[in-house]
Amino acid sequence: MMTRKLLLDMDTGIDDAMAITYALADGSADLIGVTCCFGNVTNQTAVRNTLDLLSLMGHPDIPVFCGAEHPLNEDSFEVSEGCLRIHGQNGLGNVTLPHVGKASDIPAPDFILKAAQKYGPDLILVATGAMTNLAAALRKDPETFSKIGKIVFMGGALTVEGNVTPYAEANIAVDPLAAKEVLESGLPMTMVGLDVTHKNLLTRKDAGRWERHGKAGKALFDIVAHYIDNELEQKSCSLHDPLAVAVALDETLIETHPFAMTVITEGEAAGRTVARSFADQCRNKNVSVALETSPRFVPEFVGKVEAFLTETEKNTTD
Amino acid sequence: MMTRKLLLDMDTGIDDAMAITYALADGSADLIGVTCCFGNVTNQTAVRNTLDLLSLMGHPDIPVFCGAEHPLNEDSFEVSEGCLRIHGQNGLGNVTLPHVGKASDIPAPDFILKAAQKYGPDLILVATGAMTNLAAALRKDPETFSKIGKIVFMGGALTVEGNVTPYAEANIAVDPLAAKEVLESGLPMTMVGLDVTHKNLLTRKDAGRWERHGKAGKALFDIVAHYIDNELEQKSCSLHDPLAVAVALDETLIETHPFAMTVITEGEAAGRTVARSFADQCRNKNVSVALETSPRFVPEFVGKVEAFLTETEKNTTD
Repeated sequence: MMTRKLLLDMDTGIDDAMAITYALADGSADLIGVTCCFGNVTNQTAVRNTLDLLSLMGHPDIPVFCGAEHPLNEDSFEVSEGCLRIHGQNGLGNVTLPHVGKASDIPAPDFILKAAQKYGPDLILVATGAMTNLAAALRKDPETFSKIGKIVFMGGALTVEGNVTPYAEANIAVDPLAAKEVLESGLPMTMVGLDVTHKNLLTRKDAGRWERHGKAGKALFDIVAHYIDNELEQKSCSLHDPLAVAVALDETLIETHPFAMTVITEGEAAGRTVARSFADQCRNKNVSVALETSPRFVPEFVGKVEAFLTETEKNTTD
Repeated sequence: MMTRKLLLDMDTGIDDAMAITYALADGSADLIGVTCCFGNVTNQTAVRNTLDLLSLMGHPDIPVFCGAEHPLNEDSFEVSEGCLRIHGQNGLGNVTLPHVGKASDIPAPDFILKAAQKYGPDLILVATGAMTNLAAALRKDPETFSKIGKIVFMGGALTVEGNVTPYAEANIAVDPLAAKEVLESGLPMTMVGLDVTHKNLLTRKDAGRWERHGKAGKALFDIVAHYIDNELEQKSCSLHDPLAVAVALDETLIETHPFAMTVITEGEAAGRTVARSFADQCRNKNVSVALETSPRFVPEFVGKVEAFLTETEKNTTD
């Protein structure tokens, strides 16, 4: 059997950093690249952070791709006050990593399509930022895009209130049109939204287990500590993006229900993810929305990352 | 085994009329009474309509109770333009039924508590209007209220947009506080909301099967025809309230998922039903929300009502 191929599409802030680390730590799929996008940070910062993180984690070989700079229907983008506070000025909790390597010349949507063409059903695409790169790839070549084996995204809030408005979750709110086009494409995908991510909390004590494992462990802990300190209780943070990666690699971590989903693109509810109602029995319920998660996830996440950091430290000092 | 007892709480408009008829037609539980409430119509009109319908359907013996005249936190109520259009000026599609009988002197919340005390686990309460009577009973005597065997309500919209605003469904919107108190009570209940009711459509042709069955069949058809004519396509209507009654009598008609539900009571989203998010793994997921319905429901509904009308006609002409 061919090893599964994993492609991450992200706006690399703090929980994305944990998601990259988890993808490497789990190791059950080859991480073939990371396509970047605006969202928690600018696209440029996401590229910088991704290169630096991959190098820190001992994988400077994994290619990184520049993606969308702004939403589909806009011509600029500015990082929100909320994101600057939560993820820090540099998106990594103001922890400075050595700047290493440079991005590929291939634009993100082109790499997504190239990977879809090459790996087809073995390709798993996990999006944890704005869905703009996915929408661009879908617009450019829907047939090739549809060859992707599995699409999982962190985003949306179906049964709970949003986190940037009472209706919208951040990744969808930042480019509702892109999300709408991807969700309405009819392609099978899994939505890992606030319905479940808010239930998976990483405590400061959990993250503390990483701190003593070398340079990478210390940096990751410092980055994550910034994230936790921004939470109201300052004791734990939600594992939004890591859960999406974990679910992509192990579907048994969640319970889902299928819906024909769409996104509200205008007005006060812009960015709201809802099921299409009337006569939707005729519609393709292509989106499996996660409604429950397994209590296994957090301990597995913490443990796998710790084991990986131990290994990384050993390889670095060898 | 004791026959199950059914208590309906409703704002008797057109789909409530179909729900009453279905309760009688199904016959697997004794209809012990109907408590009325404002909503589609005023409480007074709901009482009038319920008395007349029960008599039309050959059951003038079933007691009817006056309930709330207005929402918990208000001191008056006016029927909305939308309801006047959909349900007609008299709530029954402007079809005039002979006025028969009078309501009991016992107030609705008292009868709910009396029935809870008397029948306990054998009592099924189905609410298809504002939840004001239920909230009043709960406030008055939560211990007795909690003895009710099963509570099913038609109302809310968890995964889809509302019908009076993009957020709120009519029965909840009309008294969000009452709904919030009932849903947050922690008592087990089943929510039959727009998530599923919009998927169960009654066509004019289906309803036409009832028309030829005597006085009751003709009147029911005329009432329902008004409802269908108000729909955009004028070909079918959603079976909101009848589905709640059917589900109460046969749980296998739906697939549900449990949530810790609440209701937004203020602002533009007032009346929105949402799951409580943060740390809700610690919360009692007391509300089983219907997410799917069986295709059996509509044909069974139409067929059972037709059989009942045939029987009613025979008994009347005998």
